[in-house]
Amino acid sequence: MATAAARVAIGDSEFDRDTAVVPRAGEPGTYDTGLSAGWTIISAVNGGYLLAVIGRALRDALPHPDPLTITAHYLTASQPGPAVIRTQTVRAGRTLSTGQASLFQTGEDGREVERIRVLAAYGDLDALPDDVRTSAAPPQMPGYEQCVSSKDAPDGGPVTGSTAILDRLDLRLDPATAGWALGAPSGAGRMRGWLGLADGRDHDPLSLLLAVDALPPTAFDLGLKGWTPTLELTVHLRARPAPGPLQVALSTGNLAGGLLEEDGELWDSAGRLVAQSRQLARAPRG
Amino acid sequence: MATAAARVAIGDSEFDRDTAVVPRAGEPGTYDTGLSAGWTIISAVNGGYLLAVIGRALRDALPHPDPLTITAHYLTASQPGPAVIRTQTVRAGRTLSTGQASLFQTGEDGREVERIRVLAAYGDLDALPDDVRTSAAPPQMPGYEQCVSSKDAPDGGPVTGSTAILDRLDLRLDPATAGWALGAPSGAGRMRGWLGLADGRDHDPLSLLLAVDALPPTAFDLGLKGWTPTLELTVHLRARPAPGPLQVALSTGNLAGGLLEEDGELWDSAGRLVAQSRQLARAPRG
Repeated sequence: MATAAARVAIGDSEFDRDTAVVPRAGEPGTYDTGLSAGWTIISAVNGGYLLAVIGRALRDALPHPDPLTITAHYLTASQPGPAVIRTQTVRAGRTLSTGQASLFQTGEDGREVERIRVLAAYGDLDALPDDVRTSAAPPQMPGYEQCVSSKDAPDGGPVTGSTAILDRLDLRLDPATAGWALGAPSGAGRMRGWLGLADGRDHDPLSLLLAVDALPPTAFDLGLKGWTPTLELTVHLRARPAPGPLQVALSTGNLAGGLLEEDGELWDSAGRLVAQSRQLARAPRG
Repeated sequence: MATAAARVAIGDSEFDRDTAVVPRAGEPGTYDTGLSAGWTIISAVNGGYLLAVIGRALRDALPHPDPLTITAHYLTASQPGPAVIRTQTVRAGRTLSTGQASLFQTGEDGREVERIRVLAAYGDLDALPDDVRTSAAPPQMPGYEQCVSSKDAPDGGPVTGSTAILDRLDLRLDPATAGWALGAPSGAGRMRGWLGLADGRDHDPLSLLLAVDALPPTAFDLGLKGWTPTLELTVHLRARPAPGPLQVALSTGNLAGGLLEEDGELWDSAGRLVAQSRQLARAPRG
């Protein structure tokens, strides 16, 4: 692995600052936050970043630290700026707790608008038994050095608008799934790449929530252009990731009825399947 | 297809009677129901049946008829008997509405206990565009007549306790994934079968919610015995099913940390991928 050593520690990085939540005095379970413009793509705040912010509020509110399974419904388009997260402890068990959260922003008319609703079960990844019987295979893709950085991309391609998030990611795409950037998508509906954070911060469970939604959409590899808005995203976190970049593999097998699923697998540098994700999104019309 | 013609119409079957919900007068969005003992397995009420009951309440409460994506968190063990479902309309849009629901039962101490919490987006499957670009392949399995009925199973095997649900299903397992019943699981973590309802009722979106959780658990094919309690189950419904039995294919690729995922695909008799599901469950200890 030829990547740079971690330069910024977990807890001290841009990602940590931009996902910070502040408990509101006198309102238990309520958190203020500021959505950063640094994690936008095209005209939207990235859905994985938003999930990480909410996941951090739930981590504070619940008695267990790690989201084992978390589902988000994206209701209205979030905007950079202030937001408030209201959490509810649904059930607190010995090894598992269940929580709900909603992120709100204030609309132009001064009324609160719900952006996202989340339902999640939290546990402690370090307290799980050590058994591993993974039969799933890691993605077949070239090494980090043989993959292409988004910084190498030609101008144009399907993305127009903000690409701020790309400055915060260390993303290297498998050339086999990067043809869309040159007008030659494979048509297979796949997207694979190595993913770290640009400042060298290692991954933790919260950044895995970002990572499942940080690659270009599989729709680009299907030859579709434009926006693929997520309706619902569910992530299972299965292990604490080892240091170093992740291998991320996304696939779509069923584009139908104007909708598509996007399945994701995150593999850490130790070769462990640390997260599985699936989202339902609206297919671009292009 | 050599199966019997549908004998009981949708709306007039045991499944329809056992998933009936009654709006409570004066309490909009609240529904009374009775959980039937007919859909129990071992000592539990089947999670797919429970999801169908809640899905039916949300269908009544929301302006759209079909769950496009629905997530359930199973909090405490449901029991046959009375239950109340409280729904909330989170957002009502033109083509999509989002709802939340909780199912409660009264505990021995007379207090309400929340059994399940659900978050879902509903739409109208008939109003979706006609495009279909499915690259996923239907399960490779023998025809209905070459698969084995649960009625042919020898006594014993991993299941002890109630098998009431089996009387209500027309389930034929692929022999390649039925070896566990003879003490010879394949170890691959697969379960495949043909699935109808015993009274010949055809499938509809609500019975698809049952169908994703109606086969024996993949854990049996991994050689594990005992109960595999579902923590969270998410289902994407992608098309209204054609008449006739479904092909159901379940797989587990990541048993680790005492948890496993179970991925499901439902294919209808017209060869269409009508639903995709994933659950996170506790692995049996056996």
